[in-house]
Amino acid sequence: MRYFIKLTAIVLIIGTLLPGSACKTTKNPTKMTDQNSALFPKGDRLPDSYFTGNAFLTPLIAKDKNNDFMMGSVTFEAGARTFWHSHPRGQVLIVTEGNGFYQEKGKTAQPIKKGDVVNIPENTEHWHGAAAKTKMVHIAITNYEGETNVVWLKSVSEEDYNAVNKQ
Amino acid sequence: MRYFIKLTAIVLIIGTLLPGSACKTTKNPTKMTDQNSALFPKGDRLPDSYFTGNAFLTPLIAKDKNNDFMMGSVTFEAGARTFWHSHPRGQVLIVTEGNGFYQEKGKTAQPIKKGDVVNIPENTEHWHGAAAKTKMVHIAITNYEGETNVVWLKSVSEEDYNAVNKQ
Repeated sequence: MRYFIKLTAIVLIIGTLLPGSACKTTKNPTKMTDQNSALFPKGDRLPDSYFTGNAFLTPLIAKDKNNDFMMGSVTFEAGARTFWHSHPRGQVLIVTEGNGFYQEKGKTAQPIKKGDVVNIPENTEHWHGAAAKTKMVHIAITNYEGETNVVWLKSVSEEDYNAVNKQ
Repeated sequence: MRYFIKLTAIVLIIGTLLPGSACKTTKNPTKMTDQNSALFPKGDRLPDSYFTGNAFLTPLIAKDKNNDFMMGSVTFEAGARTFWHSHPRGQVLIVTEGNGFYQEKGKTAQPIKKGDVVNIPENTEHWHGAAAKTKMVHIAITNYEGETNVVWLKSVSEEDYNAVNKQ
């Protein structure tokens, strides 16, 4: 997937630009350090092939010899959400801002908000995104099974999304 | 280590109290959802055997079949820091509030602030904590090598800590 390759490249580029040190630190590139500011920049827009509405990604960690996951901050503008998808080895979401939903196939959607942590099991069809009128931002820690960490499915229909927002 | 066992127990207990769902969601237990509030509660005080000053832990994820790491939010009050330590398979820090330092043995301390991500390599002696006059909060994702994820060493002396704060 092109955007996963791109985010790996971005993280590697950031890593090589840092002063010599065994550890890699991704510095907050903006001056956004006060309590009221967003934790991370919005980043690049995510593709319409996997996301409905405007969603953005700031990559934070690429899979490496210690971290068998990728990590990024995903911003969903109001109304934006992922397509249905699953992860072969699960995913952890840390909601850092706003309000949204997490829904597993066949189950009621769960409202999620800042400070919630979602531990998504392996091979479970689900979607997540912002509420219809409120943005949502989460950090996603997505585990790898070999070289794969996601299987994309169909979009979440307007009908289903609207029903969730009315529940 | 008792507090690691305790945090596992806390996370498991939280998990069993949630409505039936394959996924485990740790809900923000407070009403702290607005932009200005802390992301997570402070949690329980961490032991003086590994932390200087007042540091606290809210456990978020315990190691499980998918997540080969533990994750928690650590709050360091001003002046508080870890002892020197290392991780057999590294650790990722996400600074969510305040200002502090990360220092590897033999290297200059790096100031860290909200929005910074630190990818700590394996078997590297280091410490992290708040600045002398400002608290710091970070999420820590600590990878496991078998059943171990940390090796604790000596405390960071007042002399060394003060020197870092004056640099």
